Amino acid sequence: MSLKDELDIVIPTIRNLDFLEMWRPFFQHYHLIIVQDGDPSKIIKVPEGFDYELYNRNDINRILGAKASCISFKDSACRCFGYMMSKKKYIYTIDDDCFVAKDPSGKDINALEQHIKNLLSPSTPHFFNTLYDPYCEGADFVRGYPFSLREGVPTAISHGLWLNIPDYDAPTQLVKPAERNTRYVNAVMTIPKGTLFPMCGMNLGFNRELIGPAMYFGLMGDGQPIGRYDDMWAGWCCKVICDHLGYGVKTGLPYIWHSKASNPFVNLKKEYKGIFWQEEIIPFFQASKLPKDCTTVEQCYIELSKQVREKLSSVDPYFEKLADAMVTWIEAWREVNSTK
Amino acid sequence: MSLKDELDIVIPTIRNLDFLEMWRPFFQHYHLIIVQDGDPSKIIKVPEGFDYELYNRNDINRILGAKASCISFKDSACRCFGYMMSKKKYIYTIDDDCFVAKDPSGKDINALEQHIKNLLSPSTPHFFNTLYDPYCEGADFVRGYPFSLREGVPTAISHGLWLNIPDYDAPTQLVKPAERNTRYVNAVMTIPKGTLFPMCGMNLGFNRELIGPAMYFGLMGDGQPIGRYDDMWAGWCCKVICDHLGYGVKTGLPYIWHSKASNPFVNLKKEYKGIFWQEEIIPFFQASKLPKDCTTVEQCYIELSKQVREKLSSVDPYFEKLADAMVTWIEAWREVNSTK
Repeated sequence: MSLKDELDIVIPTIRNLDFLEMWRPFFQHYHLIIVQDGDPSKIIKVPEGFDYELYNRNDINRILGAKASCISFKDSACRCFGYMMSKKKYIYTIDDDCFVAKDPSGKDINALEQHIKNLLSPSTPHFFNTLYDPYCEGADFVRGYPFSLREGVPTAISHGLWLNIPDYDAPTQLVKPAERNTRYVNAVMTIPKGTLFPMCGMNLGFNRELIGPAMYFGLMGDGQPIGRYDDMWAGWCCKVICDHLGYGVKTGLPYIWHSKASNPFVNLKKEYKGIFWQEEIIPFFQASKLPKDCTTVEQCYIELSKQVREKLSSVDPYFEKLADAMVTWIEAWREVNSTK
Repeated sequence: MSLKDELDIVIPTIRNLDFLEMWRPFFQHYHLIIVQDGDPSKIIKVPEGFDYELYNRNDINRILGAKASCISFKDSACRCFGYMMSKKKYIYTIDDDCFVAKDPSGKDINALEQHIKNLLSPSTPHFFNTLYDPYCEGADFVRGYPFSLREGVPTAISHGLWLNIPDYDAPTQLVKPAERNTRYVNAVMTIPKGTLFPMCGMNLGFNRELIGPAMYFGLMGDGQPIGRYDDMWAGWCCKVICDHLGYGVKTGLPYIWHSKASNPFVNLKKEYKGIFWQEEIIPFFQASKLPKDCTTVEQCYIELSKQVREKLSSVDPYFEKLADAMVTWIEAWREVNSTK
């Protein structure tokens, strides 16, 4: 299964992309969109034979002008600029410290292929199937699963997992510095409608046509009071919108090998406001309702930005800035995508 | 981990319990409650060395009198009589065609031990943890999981799965007669709040103190227009009540080995009304709200019986009978359990 002409791989980075060597058998026929973070004068080396476009901060500023303010700097949240620039139907995004994992039989896992399978088969958000993905080989819907729901709904997001270094917050990293994820769970499942989840951007596929404009990674890093909540923010927004529009979100396979834990002290500094704020943000998203006349992702996202301004500004003035940026993001998305 | 004095094993059967030989290392220290279905004059042989009590139809009629009408006959739904008679905190129930499965390393799976682990550790119905059970060894809550929710809630139900013969309905059995479940998914997860699931009674543990009175397997089999929906009915009722009372429901490990597919033609005859009805029953349960002043399982269950009568009687007069039986069941439960 391949989507050679329909999928871009988006990689945020500050360094040479040697990690691509390991991915060569799986990635080399795909187009890469590299979003260079940090010092734009630095040269990022890409291994030979890959087809790519690369954007640094100067490019982002040149292309978006004043609207570049919505793209984070010195934070991997900048990756969403790549989603905007893509002309493809599907996006796969991966961190540059993620390597090819092995399945329990010792075989290299083609993560991209599994994401494609997940994205091309339906999701089942309205009722739980106890044997997990009913569309995969050797499985089906179990007794008691309503037949009217067996066609499922289109899948918007495929959230992959990580062996070795788990995606823990700074406090958990500090408490369990030696913990490694060795548990290979051979399943893909739909996250039920109405249920939020912590979406990690390390190993993530999505249907850009269905959900692209909601895949905004927020204002993080340089000049912002928070970091490491970029993917979480996108995940909450996307899930609420997917639930409203009737799209599915899957999590589980594929695994990648996450090689290196980031520094927990640095992470704590980036995260600590988020750890506090999420206690209010999550109930906000759990309670958020989108009006029926919001029928496109862009409409839903603008509506969500209004709710963020109204309900979260009292948590911190940051959320007013974020609400502004959400609107700017949609304006920039429209601009870039209308001129294609 | 053992709950020798706190758990009963309930087995509905119509035949000699030779299958217990294979379970001896895991079950022999537990008390068994055997509910004999069908002809009460038949002698059921239980392998030596097991501690058990056995009830046949004559016993049920004698103990419950007129209220015995709520206990199904010629259907494994009769097993719920065993739940009522137990004096223990926990119940494990298993079908007599289920054998010890092996994990991928070839080791026998102690299903009961895994159910106990599931029941003794909390559930997390309010937010999805992408690394599955955060309480199991080597796992935790991932980044972005609210700290205020990490204590979880008490677990009421542990729903185990099946290798070999999957729990399919008759149409799926007919279409895929050769399909076998060979996928061992090494995970336990909480079914999120607000999400219904198809609960199978083949390999099921629960906390009788928390949810017992809702674990009624309905009116099935002899004299009834439907069969094979006993566990489904119990699952829908229990999930709605667990969501209301703040208890958790887990599914996943442990697996048992389901040895023999039941006859799909016979099953179709039993199921066909259910296949039709479930299209209305499930939206009914999805929409069901329990009032705040229902603070016990019994209150919730009586309230649910009223809603069944009001909303489902139009589907078929059977649901009026079922609503009556739900009330009778609670009366019988109270009677039996007050005289202990």
